[in-house]
Amino acid sequence: MRDDFVGDCVIALDVGGTAMKGALLDRELKPLRTVRRATPRRSGPEAVVAETATVLRDLHRSAATRELTVHGAGVVVPGIVDEENRTAVYSANLGWRDLPLAALLEDASGLPVSLGHDVRAGGAAECRLGAARDARDVWFVPVGTGISAAVFCDGRPVRAHGYAGELGHVVVEPDGEPCSCGARGCLETVASAAAIAAAYSARSGRRVDGAAGVGALLAQGDPDARAVWDRAVDALATAFATVAALLAPEVVVLGGGLAEAGALLLDPLRASLARRLTFQRRPELVPAALGDMAGCLGAGLAAWRTTDGAMPLGRPARERPEAAS
Amino acid sequence: MRDDFVGDCVIALDVGGTAMKGALLDRELKPLRTVRRATPRRSGPEAVVAETATVLRDLHRSAATRELTVHGAGVVVPGIVDEENRTAVYSANLGWRDLPLAALLEDASGLPVSLGHDVRAGGAAECRLGAARDARDVWFVPVGTGISAAVFCDGRPVRAHGYAGELGHVVVEPDGEPCSCGARGCLETVASAAAIAAAYSARSGRRVDGAAGVGALLAQGDPDARAVWDRAVDALATAFATVAALLAPEVVVLGGGLAEAGALLLDPLRASLARRLTFQRRPELVPAALGDMAGCLGAGLAAWRTTDGAMPLGRPARERPEAAS
Repeated sequence: MRDDFVGDCVIALDVGGTAMKGALLDRELKPLRTVRRATPRRSGPEAVVAETATVLRDLHRSAATRELTVHGAGVVVPGIVDEENRTAVYSANLGWRDLPLAALLEDASGLPVSLGHDVRAGGAAECRLGAARDARDVWFVPVGTGISAAVFCDGRPVRAHGYAGELGHVVVEPDGEPCSCGARGCLETVASAAAIAAAYSARSGRRVDGAAGVGALLAQGDPDARAVWDRAVDALATAFATVAALLAPEVVVLGGGLAEAGALLLDPLRASLARRLTFQRRPELVPAALGDMAGCLGAGLAAWRTTDGAMPLGRPARERPEAAS
Repeated sequence: MRDDFVGDCVIALDVGGTAMKGALLDRELKPLRTVRRATPRRSGPEAVVAETATVLRDLHRSAATRELTVHGAGVVVPGIVDEENRTAVYSANLGWRDLPLAALLEDASGLPVSLGHDVRAGGAAECRLGAARDARDVWFVPVGTGISAAVFCDGRPVRAHGYAGELGHVVVEPDGEPCSCGARGCLETVASAAAIAAAYSARSGRRVDGAAGVGALLAQGDPDARAVWDRAVDALATAFATVAALLAPEVVVLGGGLAEAGALLLDPLRASLARRLTFQRRPELVPAALGDMAGCLGAGLAAWRTTDGAMPLGRPARERPEAAS
């Protein structure tokens, strides 16, 4: 590490459906300061954009106070994101559509902003610092309320203008339950943390504390938990077998809430996947290493990549009115 | 086009299970001479390698006779090919395993040889000259005896050390018929040209002249042909819907024997796929443009890419004994 860069940083911000996770990150992506704020989702997309810009400005001021030089900002958001065109194409959760978000945030914050996708950014961070170091063909699959994936082929993210990686909408049960996307039997309707909890309650008539609760009951030998869990594992194995045939990843990194079940999930999933593969390359299934900071670290990675070589920024300008563009 | 390059060419050779298709190709991939030879598959892999080297030397001599300068050779083969390590990893059809084929052919022919995979090479040719010009996210899917795919993301081939693109081994009927790979219900067992013909005969008790024969009967209103065809179309649509969710190609190029059915295949396939997609990017389904020369043209493309900038070769050396390496 070069001593003269000790005071350099980027601003990284992961704008989620419920919370924003922000940080000042040095060149090794070590957090020098972190912040969490509630996402004002219910106040509409304008409020979310305004709050995002406020957090960026606050972090910029905080960096100045610590004599840190800010080199740029990375912001990641959920939904469909077109990094190339710097546009937040769609987020059901945050309520926006075709928003030129990078430009809006640059105008509002006075910082150069690199816009990214939360899951692809998280995957990039797992590839760089986390569970998939040294691998080049990688799937990063967070399983939580929904199921998505970040796809890396030969070390490069596959974007397809933001449409790649919709693993949650691979159909695993052709006559299955309706999915929010309009299809039936999507992986998400069977194997997301939300679906597992809902299926348990529907089957047993008992309330349960999320997928983690189902996992706990499973460990106690509850037969309804066993049936629901096995079905989810089977569905995930079906989807991963397809992924192995089509793209042959070396590593599949499981993240999100469900991955916290650890061996309870990974052991049967590995076995079920192994039974399905014949000649295909067998991916290593590993738990994510960076937890819920993956997206924020990935945002920082993108900020460093975009702004590296650029001139460092000066101190933050005084608060500017939201630009009329 | 620069006049001083009119006399330049590469040797391109597509080694198939039954025939080898060779050509001298100019910089625009225009064939200056083509040859076809039977592949001596039944005489074993050594015979295939020896015959491949013979065709390369013959084409080299033929180029010299025409005062053409050969810049290198591209050879493509089926199975699992690791381009990076220049190795033919596996071909059930040609009977080899872990063969350092590029080096063997260089020793035997005295030419620099770029080794490639027949389907990926064919896809690259369709992207450059054929049905997928101007697209960057492309699947090239030849449907013949088997079903495979060449995958291009953002204009780059996805290789995964030769394991990517096994579309024929995506399971579409979980309790379906046994596949040669050892699994059940692979796409190949339902929708390959071979499977369509076999399913028709099994169902109707009548012999049929391949999938083309089933297509002809379908056009005449044969109900068994209708049932078999619909099932194959459904299976292909299922697989393409999965591909659309995972990788969102702009264009899917259908090649191989089955694509010669034209609208009989493409019209119902487009409709069935459209019914399955909800929010995903809808790929354009188009027939291949280069026919059975795609692989050979792709071999030439790779040869030009590898050898461009390199010194042109002199006249062919006298026949050399197969190198003992």
